[in-house]
Amino acid sequence: MSGGTEADRMARVALALLVEPGNQELGRLIRGAGVQGALERVLAGAVPAPLAGTVATRLAAEGTPATVAAVTARAADAAGQARRLGARIVTPDDDEWPQQLDDLARASRADGPPVDRDLDPPVCLWVCGATPLVEATEHSVAVVGARAATEYGSHVAGELAYGLAERGWGVVSGGAFGIDAAAHRGALAAGGPTVAVFACGVDRPYPAAHVSLFERIAEEGVLISEWPPGAAPFRQRFLIRNRVIAAVTRGTVMVEAASRSGARQTLGRARRLGRACMAVPGPVTSAMSTGCHAELRGLGTRLVATVDEVVEEVGRIGDLAPVPRGAERPHDGLDPLAARLLDAVLPRKARTAEEVAAAAGVSGRDARRALPLLVAEGFVVVQGAGYRLAPGPGGSVGCSR
Amino acid sequence: MSGGTEADRMARVALALLVEPGNQELGRLIRGAGVQGALERVLAGAVPAPLAGTVATRLAAEGTPATVAAVTARAADAAGQARRLGARIVTPDDDEWPQQLDDLARASRADGPPVDRDLDPPVCLWVCGATPLVEATEHSVAVVGARAATEYGSHVAGELAYGLAERGWGVVSGGAFGIDAAAHRGALAAGGPTVAVFACGVDRPYPAAHVSLFERIAEEGVLISEWPPGAAPFRQRFLIRNRVIAAVTRGTVMVEAASRSGARQTLGRARRLGRACMAVPGPVTSAMSTGCHAELRGLGTRLVATVDEVVEEVGRIGDLAPVPRGAERPHDGLDPLAARLLDAVLPRKARTAEEVAAAAGVSGRDARRALPLLVAEGFVVVQGAGYRLAPGPGGSVGCSR
Repeated sequence: MSGGTEADRMARVALALLVEPGNQELGRLIRGAGVQGALERVLAGAVPAPLAGTVATRLAAEGTPATVAAVTARAADAAGQARRLGARIVTPDDDEWPQQLDDLARASRADGPPVDRDLDPPVCLWVCGATPLVEATEHSVAVVGARAATEYGSHVAGELAYGLAERGWGVVSGGAFGIDAAAHRGALAAGGPTVAVFACGVDRPYPAAHVSLFERIAEEGVLISEWPPGAAPFRQRFLIRNRVIAAVTRGTVMVEAASRSGARQTLGRARRLGRACMAVPGPVTSAMSTGCHAELRGLGTRLVATVDEVVEEVGRIGDLAPVPRGAERPHDGLDPLAARLLDAVLPRKARTAEEVAAAAGVSGRDARRALPLLVAEGFVVVQGAGYRLAPGPGGSVGCSR
Repeated sequence: MSGGTEADRMARVALALLVEPGNQELGRLIRGAGVQGALERVLAGAVPAPLAGTVATRLAAEGTPATVAAVTARAADAAGQARRLGARIVTPDDDEWPQQLDDLARASRADGPPVDRDLDPPVCLWVCGATPLVEATEHSVAVVGARAATEYGSHVAGELAYGLAERGWGVVSGGAFGIDAAAHRGALAAGGPTVAVFACGVDRPYPAAHVSLFERIAEEGVLISEWPPGAAPFRQRFLIRNRVIAAVTRGTVMVEAASRSGARQTLGRARRLGRACMAVPGPVTSAMSTGCHAELRGLGTRLVATVDEVVEEVGRIGDLAPVPRGAERPHDGLDPLAARLLDAVLPRKARTAEEVAAAAGVSGRDARRALPLLVAEGFVVVQGAGYRLAPGPGGSVGCSR
């Protein structure tokens, strides 16, 4: 943990308990007055009516007084409950927080139909699993699609996820039946980390039939949710959740989708966030591919048929269009060669100097010369005969490429 | 029949017997000196060496003297032979001639690899079948693809052709096994006219197994060839033939194609002619769809999954954007975003993606995504940190990178 006081932290948890995720009014308040200031104003009812009303209703239903002391005590309880469940609460002040989620604040827009509206970043996350969230998501791709997937779709999702995990990419999905499950399983089969983003509490496996899948994900990857333990998987929550899948990854691949499908909404959010938008084609005779084909007839979605094509897209977005970041990145000061090499060093899998050179498109000589300097500066660590990214903020700054 | 003298007609037939179709030298001669003038010069050897040589060789092999009288007599024999076969010879002077074939003269370019070179229009056509050729091709779509089609591909080709014929569109294809045959059969099943474009004489059913299919096509549609009766289906002739399929139709739909496929060449010719370029997606697990997916990853080919989507594409070309007959515009086949961006790329001064985006009124992200594709397709070249138009006619000479 770094930055932020314990009071900030508890204020965040309290707000997460009081307000449904994504609330734009709350987001503006936090950005303007800080989390504690926001909490005070929310409790004082000094906020626009819809937000004030929902908070008052929730407090009344729970019999919690509208005081900072009372809601903070409740937040501390929730934190204790999370610990007992084996979960942890991660806030933007933590090193583990995926900074790319903050892009949601920039993308937040109140126009458009409510369901499709862009929404604010999570206030905090409940996280379950051994892998640090930032590590599982920093080079990650969302693989999403229909629950009623066909055998073809499940096969393709599994193969793509396997190939992505094999190449060191995290695979993020929603834990649902069909494409989501095939993606998680594919990544697990390759021994890679996979992230399931829940639309309910991390203690409520949904669908229930995926209990053992979620156990495996928690062992080798991460389960995350913006909702506190106990929260139910309401339909609307899936659509709110989708923005996290889109924001936390470098790109979203839709494998199968009917014409009307939540996966298309995820893809739309990814597009508005400037992430790579991809869809896998399928037989035109399959209703489960019509959503993919409809997206592919538009301009914003690229057809992908292989793992390499997916990697090309998520790499390219970064190369040509670095996600603009508010905060300074540790390697902003690096010279172009070093920055290029750093981009080609993988977080988990060690690459030799030659492999890094090849991936970065520089000479082996340049790589052999510059990599030890990157090690000396703490960006990269030596592993065996190769190099991989140093853990933590130094060598692992979100969507830096 | 209208315009053109019988001497013109016989000169054309004589030239068709002497020179392989598509010859650009001959095309220039005809446009400059008329058909009779061209024939005289060819016989006098007053033409560049390659053309003069091939003509001399052919005359020698047949024992025909190099005189206008002798070759015209031979042309008259050929016309008689055609009549006995139930075929007719159609020239650009006939009402039955599909005028859209003349676009080939404008598109004729000598650069690029020989096989992919744009070639001149046919000098004349041998036609078999009751329907006037102009009627069968006036509102027509090419449905092409792999010979080794899968059941899926044959099914889709048949359904598309059936639907097109039902809506009054002619279906043009190459009479081959697989997609071609499925397309012809689909059109016939709907009682619509279908056109098989041969790469050999109309008296040589190729493949032989399609004898009865060709008989049905001749009854309800048309068989056409640029080659005189008796000509064999040499491999190279299929590639030369493909330009006629692309030119005579408003658009080409590729239903299934392996990575290396003659159908992709037809699609490329259609693109350069400003015709609608379409491909049907399929399972990414099918090698017979890889060519389609590769095309769909570029900018110049639209994904089509239904008959309505095909009609929308070919309707658009005809209804909203009548094929410009004055000047060739290679980017008529581009999608609207790409076309808009291309308009904003300057011929000499390089503009950055952002400058192009600003000028075109699109987002920077769209520009950064689409410009590299325009580079890959040869419309635009990279210069420093920016982009400028590729040199050559219309900014699109081959692949410039």
